[in-house]
Amino acid sequence: MTVKDLYKDYKKLLDKEITLKGWIRNHRKQKEFGFIEFSDGTCFKHVQIVYENKLKDFEEIQKMHNGCAIEVVGKVVKSQGKQDFEVNANKIILLGDCPEDYPMQPKRHTKEFLREQAYLRPRTNLFQAIFRIRSVAAFAIHEYFQSNGYLYVHTPLLTTADCEGSDQMFKVTTLDLNNLPKDENGKVDTTKDLFGDLTYITGSGQLHGETFALAFNKIYTFGPTFRTENSNTKTHANEFWMIEPEIAFCDLNGLMDIEEDMLKYIVKYVLDKCSDEIDFCDSFVEKGLREKLEKLVSSKFTRITHKEVIDILKKADIKWEFTPNYDDDIAKEHEKYITEYFNGPVFITDWPKDIKAWYMKVNDDNKTVAAVDLEVPGAGELMGGSQREDDYDLLVARAKELGVDTDAVDWYINLRKYGGCYHSGFGMGFERLIIYLTGADNIRDVIPYPRTPGNCDY
Amino acid sequence: MTVKDLYKDYKKLLDKEITLKGWIRNHRKQKEFGFIEFSDGTCFKHVQIVYENKLKDFEEIQKMHNGCAIEVVGKVVKSQGKQDFEVNANKIILLGDCPEDYPMQPKRHTKEFLREQAYLRPRTNLFQAIFRIRSVAAFAIHEYFQSNGYLYVHTPLLTTADCEGSDQMFKVTTLDLNNLPKDENGKVDTTKDLFGDLTYITGSGQLHGETFALAFNKIYTFGPTFRTENSNTKTHANEFWMIEPEIAFCDLNGLMDIEEDMLKYIVKYVLDKCSDEIDFCDSFVEKGLREKLEKLVSSKFTRITHKEVIDILKKADIKWEFTPNYDDDIAKEHEKYITEYFNGPVFITDWPKDIKAWYMKVNDDNKTVAAVDLEVPGAGELMGGSQREDDYDLLVARAKELGVDTDAVDWYINLRKYGGCYHSGFGMGFERLIIYLTGADNIRDVIPYPRTPGNCDY
Repeated sequence: MTVKDLYKDYKKLLDKEITLKGWIRNHRKQKEFGFIEFSDGTCFKHVQIVYENKLKDFEEIQKMHNGCAIEVVGKVVKSQGKQDFEVNANKIILLGDCPEDYPMQPKRHTKEFLREQAYLRPRTNLFQAIFRIRSVAAFAIHEYFQSNGYLYVHTPLLTTADCEGSDQMFKVTTLDLNNLPKDENGKVDTTKDLFGDLTYITGSGQLHGETFALAFNKIYTFGPTFRTENSNTKTHANEFWMIEPEIAFCDLNGLMDIEEDMLKYIVKYVLDKCSDEIDFCDSFVEKGLREKLEKLVSSKFTRITHKEVIDILKKADIKWEFTPNYDDDIAKEHEKYITEYFNGPVFITDWPKDIKAWYMKVNDDNKTVAAVDLEVPGAGELMGGSQREDDYDLLVARAKELGVDTDAVDWYINLRKYGGCYHSGFGMGFERLIIYLTGADNIRDVIPYPRTPGNCDY
Repeated sequence: MTVKDLYKDYKKLLDKEITLKGWIRNHRKQKEFGFIEFSDGTCFKHVQIVYENKLKDFEEIQKMHNGCAIEVVGKVVKSQGKQDFEVNANKIILLGDCPEDYPMQPKRHTKEFLREQAYLRPRTNLFQAIFRIRSVAAFAIHEYFQSNGYLYVHTPLLTTADCEGSDQMFKVTTLDLNNLPKDENGKVDTTKDLFGDLTYITGSGQLHGETFALAFNKIYTFGPTFRTENSNTKTHANEFWMIEPEIAFCDLNGLMDIEEDMLKYIVKYVLDKCSDEIDFCDSFVEKGLREKLEKLVSSKFTRITHKEVIDILKKADIKWEFTPNYDDDIAKEHEKYITEYFNGPVFITDWPKDIKAWYMKVNDDNKTVAAVDLEVPGAGELMGGSQREDDYDLLVARAKELGVDTDAVDWYINLRKYGGCYHSGFGMGFERLIIYLTGADNIRDVIPYPRTPGNCDY
């Protein structure tokens, strides 16, 4: 029996004997009794195991340390304390020992210490909560898209086209770095590599995703993504997961409808399935987390243009560190102000084309593109998307203007030639969502084994 | 309105006007009529659009080629032909043109030709079927594990530990290959790389998965996996997706229960949700596919040891190309014979330890390990798993015996020290499952953009 099932059915199980397998999270010993805080990882809650000195192994049991794997056979009984029930043990068997100097003692550890113990930290309350929320949120995303008729596409990670700028991409090779084959010019002979060419790990599945949207109408990707950014901040990792939906016959307004609907679905789903975990994070990670999330579900997202945002920022009676500018991106301080100003999530649309990507649809003003960023209170930009340029000639001109190697992406550009249509898509960084859902303030604490500059341990 | 919704509700929609957006898959023109086979990608079925010469754009419409994106406004009517209904168009608007030399004409193309048109092939019936099944099967996997209380873990892809043998792993770097920094010995100075060390893409998430199983009890991974194998076969790709569940307090028999239960769940789910796609594959890809899948769902999987399998093979009145041997792996011809012999899926357990991995639990005979491969009729090995060695000393001895760098995986080995317990897990190659579910005989046809030696196009 799992602890999860036990909590579901404990009323029916009162006075019945059950068997549990799991770990000692805390062990309080008295002369005549012992109390074991027991967890098997199947749910956030622990179970109190009580054993008495009438058990013949009493002394052996008292020697069991925190962290030990045990099997408990016992009777479910009404609790003397504040729990709904406890288990009165008839037998406690040691399955796996744990030394007294086990690093995960039941006390408050710093997050820095826990990062160094990345393989043990999933056993703590904090990471039980965060990684359960991560798993449930991932499923909510799949369920949202599948139940709305989207196709899940596994776009490739390896690519020979460095269309996003190879300075942002990892190079991948099977060649011996200490004995690289050279061509006649003394350069690395990449034709000798496994794929016969220099290969990268891609930073986005969007271009490939669009090819499937123009066949299946609505698609999404959900997979790992890699960036070489050498920046040690709380929000950057070199390996993270991303969701990239793409929808045919969908304009920018339609895209915002989908983004809003999806986010509310995920938040509602997590509130529903991870109530204990959210409560824990509300108490120990971000005060007011539950209220923040519940408010999002019922709020109406504001839709406003970049120009209007700059107007508001300029009118604000604030001395900005970064002066708001009609031609520029907005800074973190501006994002914060805007979500507070509207007291909820804000879609900012129609961005200056010079600061956005080559494939975004240029608006009639020829100055802005049909792009949209979603800013949420407390987390800043959560999603970024756009309507895609669907005019073949305009797209080619824009690509050349920005120095994109059009030969490498001719297939992508050709989509505009073979039954192209207006279509839109967005990307959501999964870790940013988990930060928002848990209140964790560092991306290193929402990824099982984070990869950041200088750190690829485990 | 989508074609999917139209098929669901067409009875209610008879004589009502609807709007559809999608693509011309085939266009037959007559003097007074035109017939458009229309698809919007939301479901496998097409819709017949009929238009008459009374439409004022009749001549314009007749010029529209296969592949064009169009908007159709029309009335749902009873069909004159064999369909359930058709749409009598009042208006057909061209949204995206397509030239007459569009490669995807409505005729039978070779699979080789379609591979070269990887970005357009999702528009064909064959790939509409295969990639829909792929998407639905992926969701079935998530649903199976989530509804059974498993945690979805995103194990890292980048790693500095080459514990699986670096010859099978891609190297990843941010260094300039044409200008590599060298150390005092003239070797590449990998301390200058982003992570400060030589980095690989991992070929498995199992070791990391185990650390989470010992915290959350039941976990699974589902993500891309990479191998550098330079082999051009129908079953090898250098990038593929894999599912790796890991379960605490689970022995080899428990593992087989889970594998059998999961596979039946997925097959049932796909039969239920992709009936049209399965019928198409049954007709054009593998005759008898539906029967094969339905039979699997209701069959009892055989469980037999490797030794017993060799006994059977040796007794068989067959001249083997590869002689069956108690110390060796079994060959494809043996797998085929055994699944035919038992007329269904077969779990083969207790393999010679010398041909299996270092982390598998050695049986009491000290000759075999508690490993299991699942062989299915027509596809061979679909899953491979084992109970893991949970004895610290035995694991270390075995790792050293096989030359594993124990320093690099000390955290993994330490799991046996800190409340270790018996636990088991398996891996399933997702593409092999899709080959089984669709009858496709080449891995290149079940991956959106396959990566094989010499081929990393698109």
